[in-house]
Amino acid sequence: MRTPGKTEANVKSTALVQPGSTVTFDRLKAFIREALAKLGLPDQDAITVAALMAQADLQGSDGHGVSRLPQYARRIRAGGFNVRPNIRVVREQASTALVNGDNGMGHLVMSRAAEIAIEKARSSGIGWVNSQFSNHAGPASLYARMPLKHDMIGLYFAVGNANHLPPWGGLDMLLSTNPIAAAIPAGRENPIVLDMATTVAAYGKVKTKAMRGETMPEGWMIDRTGKPLVDPKRADEGMLLPLGGMEAGYKGYGLAVIIGLLAGTLGGAAMGRDVIDFNHDDDSVTNTGQAIAAINVAAFGDVATFKAAVDTLVRDFRRSEKMPGVDRILVPGERSEETRVVRARDGIPIVPALLRSLDQLASELGMAGLG
Amino acid sequence: MRTPGKTEANVKSTALVQPGSTVTFDRLKAFIREALAKLGLPDQDAITVAALMAQADLQGSDGHGVSRLPQYARRIRAGGFNVRPNIRVVREQASTALVNGDNGMGHLVMSRAAEIAIEKARSSGIGWVNSQFSNHAGPASLYARMPLKHDMIGLYFAVGNANHLPPWGGLDMLLSTNPIAAAIPAGRENPIVLDMATTVAAYGKVKTKAMRGETMPEGWMIDRTGKPLVDPKRADEGMLLPLGGMEAGYKGYGLAVIIGLLAGTLGGAAMGRDVIDFNHDDDSVTNTGQAIAAINVAAFGDVATFKAAVDTLVRDFRRSEKMPGVDRILVPGERSEETRVVRARDGIPIVPALLRSLDQLASELGMAGLG
Repeated sequence: MRTPGKTEANVKSTALVQPGSTVTFDRLKAFIREALAKLGLPDQDAITVAALMAQADLQGSDGHGVSRLPQYARRIRAGGFNVRPNIRVVREQASTALVNGDNGMGHLVMSRAAEIAIEKARSSGIGWVNSQFSNHAGPASLYARMPLKHDMIGLYFAVGNANHLPPWGGLDMLLSTNPIAAAIPAGRENPIVLDMATTVAAYGKVKTKAMRGETMPEGWMIDRTGKPLVDPKRADEGMLLPLGGMEAGYKGYGLAVIIGLLAGTLGGAAMGRDVIDFNHDDDSVTNTGQAIAAINVAAFGDVATFKAAVDTLVRDFRRSEKMPGVDRILVPGERSEETRVVRARDGIPIVPALLRSLDQLASELGMAGLG
Repeated sequence: MRTPGKTEANVKSTALVQPGSTVTFDRLKAFIREALAKLGLPDQDAITVAALMAQADLQGSDGHGVSRLPQYARRIRAGGFNVRPNIRVVREQASTALVNGDNGMGHLVMSRAAEIAIEKARSSGIGWVNSQFSNHAGPASLYARMPLKHDMIGLYFAVGNANHLPPWGGLDMLLSTNPIAAAIPAGRENPIVLDMATTVAAYGKVKTKAMRGETMPEGWMIDRTGKPLVDPKRADEGMLLPLGGMEAGYKGYGLAVIIGLLAGTLGGAAMGRDVIDFNHDDDSVTNTGQAIAAINVAAFGDVATFKAAVDTLVRDFRRSEKMPGVDRILVPGERSEETRVVRARDGIPIVPALLRSLDQLASELGMAGLG
């Protein structure tokens, strides 16, 4: 057992300073935008997706930012994404909507869904919008954060794009890491932002370990006999452990099921055995589902009072007496916020393997590389 | 590590058959109703609370049913509950409401809140209702289940009534076990019902262990130096571990924070250091907050199609290949459903210590005991 507050996993981001190349946020955004435009996205869509992908890298969500670009490019070329989607509302009530993403990039679909949810929350207190025929949209927190500037709480649920989790006690991969994100506006403090897979580790972290040639801690994955699996290159032979691990993983399993039903099944999107593994399939329509809710703080009380209460909570946490060996108490989202500041100043680190793969893509597209 | 699917903790209920007394559901309900009426609740309110408390015992939520009656009685006598509350909506929009419980019993407040949420979901797709000045309301699943018969999904969040959880890495008890519950309607299968504390173990389970004179498994609690604490009678010296345990407990901590903000802070209810420990305080107003959401499945698609998809998922889980040593794959809520059937048939077991305490209360109130 490790000391709370000191675990590697507490840091969602990579190390803040790394050997190798860094790029500025603006350079990265421009690179992604150019690549997506060359791949066929309308320029306005390329701008939207590039801004969100670069934002993911800026905040340290390295498994969900530019590292996905080569895979997105493969899918676009294989016809697996619709680069000219007709994203549209197909069902609507005063406070809910179902958005058909027409197999466009998930970033576009869920940006639209967030706008609709915010609009509905403004008029009726809450807005809840599901997507169908969406796709991978990057880190959940990007969308949960969108309601913040309207003094609203954001909630986001997604069905992951590959099943690496069996039902509790089982071996069939019927569930994904189905993440949940929540963002709560604060006053003088930074917003509280939770973004977590319902497995002990997100699969993106497994991929990052593999890319860096590192081993995984015990407890992230097990093999089919229940033994710990620590070699990320053997990930296909094993399964992720649900949050709670061997002791209480039935809870993480339960969360993954509920989130999948809310984000997928409710909107007529894929869940369970219908989920396409987009790591091994570049051309099938994934019918990815996500859900976003915006809750208008003003519908429940005075906004300034709410924000002051959030500030007080954050400060009480921070001032808490600490366990032996713990330097700081962190609030959800605090590390991402710090990473955002550091990377805006010092640049976004790009590991060599990723840089090579991006420069290869750039060369194929006839554009300048990042390196 | 234990085998998934075989953990004791997978069974929320007590053992299905126990030595000692059993009572029928109807007898238990009548007993609670009589006691509450003698304690001063209007008869209609006593009926409502008794039905919900007995339902908790019927489904195996033993830490949240009649075992709480002696404590409720203490609070009522000490003036800690308002037995004639004016439960009322104090803020409202098309899809949201804030209910002031006027310090009435939480069962009454959250039954009303659930009705309002369901009504709003019927007209606008979703209803979200927060409570303030509510109180302990029993198991979260009771309320999450209420929207089910209207073909709606129920979500429920609550601030627990005692802080046993510090922020991750800290020692100050600033958080409770803040539970989340979700109920999803199915077709021919039973609904999927998740009800979980965001700690590894709910504090009610610690109390149950203490009442039975048993030790706790390692991983439920730690002492202030981080060492495992297994004697439930020493619970006051330690703290619960958040879901994820020593390895990934920052996730359970994050969930507890978000749920507390949604259920407490949003509605102007207690959260953080304002939470009253109702195990050691019988007369202060707790200002407990809960939140319930009802989501109308019909707002997103065809209800029969949705239910069929839920059925398919349940059956796929059940048919999954199993890990060595696992007999069955369970779906969230399945064990409670089975407990409900068994206890409706065989009666609800009441452990001797509880029976003595209930008979003592009955004697004080001048009514017949359960025994």
